[in-house]
Amino acid sequence: MEQDDRQPKGTEETPLETAAEVEAALEDLRNEIDAVDETIVGLLARRQKVVGRVVALKKRHNLPVYHPAREEDLISKRRQQSAASDLDPDFVEDLYRTIIRRSRVEQASSMARKSVRPGATVLIVGGEGRMGRYFRDCFSEAGYAVRSLDQNDWPDVDRLCGGIDLAILSVPIDRTEAIAARLGPHLPPDAVLSDMTSLKAAPLAAMTAAHAGPVVGLHPLFGPTTSTLDKQIVVAAPGRDPAACQWVLDQFVSWGAIIVTADAREHDDIMDIVQALRHFATFAFGRFLRQKGVRLSRSLEFSSPIYRLELGMVGRLFAQDTALYCEIILASPRRRALLKDYIASMNENLEMVEKGDKDRFHDEFRKIADWFGPFSDQAMRESTYLINKLIERF
Amino acid sequence: MEQDDRQPKGTEETPLETAAEVEAALEDLRNEIDAVDETIVGLLARRQKVVGRVVALKKRHNLPVYHPAREEDLISKRRQQSAASDLDPDFVEDLYRTIIRRSRVEQASSMARKSVRPGATVLIVGGEGRMGRYFRDCFSEAGYAVRSLDQNDWPDVDRLCGGIDLAILSVPIDRTEAIAARLGPHLPPDAVLSDMTSLKAAPLAAMTAAHAGPVVGLHPLFGPTTSTLDKQIVVAAPGRDPAACQWVLDQFVSWGAIIVTADAREHDDIMDIVQALRHFATFAFGRFLRQKGVRLSRSLEFSSPIYRLELGMVGRLFAQDTALYCEIILASPRRRALLKDYIASMNENLEMVEKGDKDRFHDEFRKIADWFGPFSDQAMRESTYLINKLIERF
Repeated sequence: MEQDDRQPKGTEETPLETAAEVEAALEDLRNEIDAVDETIVGLLARRQKVVGRVVALKKRHNLPVYHPAREEDLISKRRQQSAASDLDPDFVEDLYRTIIRRSRVEQASSMARKSVRPGATVLIVGGEGRMGRYFRDCFSEAGYAVRSLDQNDWPDVDRLCGGIDLAILSVPIDRTEAIAARLGPHLPPDAVLSDMTSLKAAPLAAMTAAHAGPVVGLHPLFGPTTSTLDKQIVVAAPGRDPAACQWVLDQFVSWGAIIVTADAREHDDIMDIVQALRHFATFAFGRFLRQKGVRLSRSLEFSSPIYRLELGMVGRLFAQDTALYCEIILASPRRRALLKDYIASMNENLEMVEKGDKDRFHDEFRKIADWFGPFSDQAMRESTYLINKLIERF
Repeated sequence: MEQDDRQPKGTEETPLETAAEVEAALEDLRNEIDAVDETIVGLLARRQKVVGRVVALKKRHNLPVYHPAREEDLISKRRQQSAASDLDPDFVEDLYRTIIRRSRVEQASSMARKSVRPGATVLIVGGEGRMGRYFRDCFSEAGYAVRSLDQNDWPDVDRLCGGIDLAILSVPIDRTEAIAARLGPHLPPDAVLSDMTSLKAAPLAAMTAAHAGPVVGLHPLFGPTTSTLDKQIVVAAPGRDPAACQWVLDQFVSWGAIIVTADAREHDDIMDIVQALRHFATFAFGRFLRQKGVRLSRSLEFSSPIYRLELGMVGRLFAQDTALYCEIILASPRRRALLKDYIASMNENLEMVEKGDKDRFHDEFRKIADWFGPFSDQAMRESTYLINKLIERF
């Protein structure tokens, strides 16, 4: 593998004295680029200040941060200007999506300090857990009085529940129902009872049974490492008296989150797939990589960005909270039945693999591709965009 | 689920006449932002022109496009300026990674028209396939004389091979060996013989047996939809006379690609995992989604960006060439044995799933997490970055 006999490129065409001149000419051009860049960054700083004034104004007058029409108008103006200036409009749009999101996140984080229910008190049950602490911080920063009730605080439950406007259960899935039942009798009748569990039907039933007041089940589709709620999804499953629960949803919206309302049963059906199946499949894949002793870092040197992305998805799972994923994956008998079906379905491939049956593979592949339909092309577009981002950055 | 009883926000604090004033003040600030943006985009256009002059200079003097030290210097200057101007340096770095890559891609696409071996002739065997056409275009644009040999052109093989400097086999994996054997006797003795197959050991053996001249096996780790070779990886497995093959590798480098040199056997071991196992796992997952009739679009409404990303990876597979993936997955008996092991390993989870054995899950999860080690944290960082990009864009 001797490949060091490569000739320095261009030695024939470029005698040494010219090389120094070329370097000087390049240096001049680089200085010119640096000057342009310095002006651009200066303008970004100025832009940020103007955005700060927009935020102050919106905050004073309770106007929403997210203004899709304004964002599209801004992008469209820059695209037109790009086309007229011989710049690729997609490139400029790409930059402006980053700039706009940044400005939205800054606005949202400033708005976060605004409470939609000034003076209200929030009790986080399980406030010492990672999600519990996350939401304690959110509510505190928004100006709510926040209390925490943990395992050892039950003797004090009546004092902790006194006068609260909202109780949120942020506890492991398998304890949510029992804790709802235990907490219910101590709640003020008009307090909203809510939870953060990744299942909704059983916890919602337990909450409405334990508390006669307003109830709404929530499932935030993000973890405690999320730096901003901007455009993050929170599923809301109505329990009782939605009007009385609305301010809680409004608070999440003011933090930038998107509320998706769903029936608890539909939510659970979808989460069986979105969470349990997907995480289990990832777990099983990671388990096999370990069994085979795959050399991860060498495999990355050899690999397309898409493999890096996919392996990253597997690695990501194992950087997270074991207990949480254990609960999510094995949460309910229905989930476990789904995972059994998945294992059974995996076995149906065995004969095809053993025989190297290409006709059958071909046939199955086409059927699945047809079923995915236009989603495949969308997936191709989005993942290609991200692959390019990965190449840019790493 | 009546939630339409929400009050318009801020109606109490903001009487109508003030609202119009607020809107006018916002409009002024938006105009100010637009003016800043117009200047920024104007500067980007100017920057592009200066970069164009850098490219012309580099091209004239055969200097490489990619200059990592200059890129890092540029980023570091902008980060310092950001910190001094109250801008988040990560945000500005993010923008500049996009700008720099853009400039690199433009430079590479301009350099692409430069041949490292002026006057050479390239024969693409399988030049009507998707990858074949892709490389025909690359070599043509770089100024090579390019010929194509397809199934029906064999009667004409001697004329097509006459005087060529490089023959590249771009044919299905399972036909590479036979086609190498058939082509070999017709090649000029000093022509380089190469292939593009995703396996390397068997094709390389067949090529060195069929041709007594220089041989190098290539595996481009990207598909024909890749818009630029910038930072894309090409694995090179040396066959015979690396010095005589070097110009072929140099040509890929001049297009922006990164050459990773590897022994054919090591390459194949890694690709069993990187390609066969991974694609098979994705195939089996997609197959199960179809079996269960999962409503993809509704599930996306409910989902975190990471699920969208993961589902996108599955959908992406099925947007691609069935025959190619069939070949990749079932390519060799060794691959099929690996996939059998994977199915067997999947079955080892069955008891744990049936019993809902959380202790065992916990134990397995920890062992795998330990094995992934620091890679998990890196994966977490990279995927979090991409999730933010996904939120920005879609």
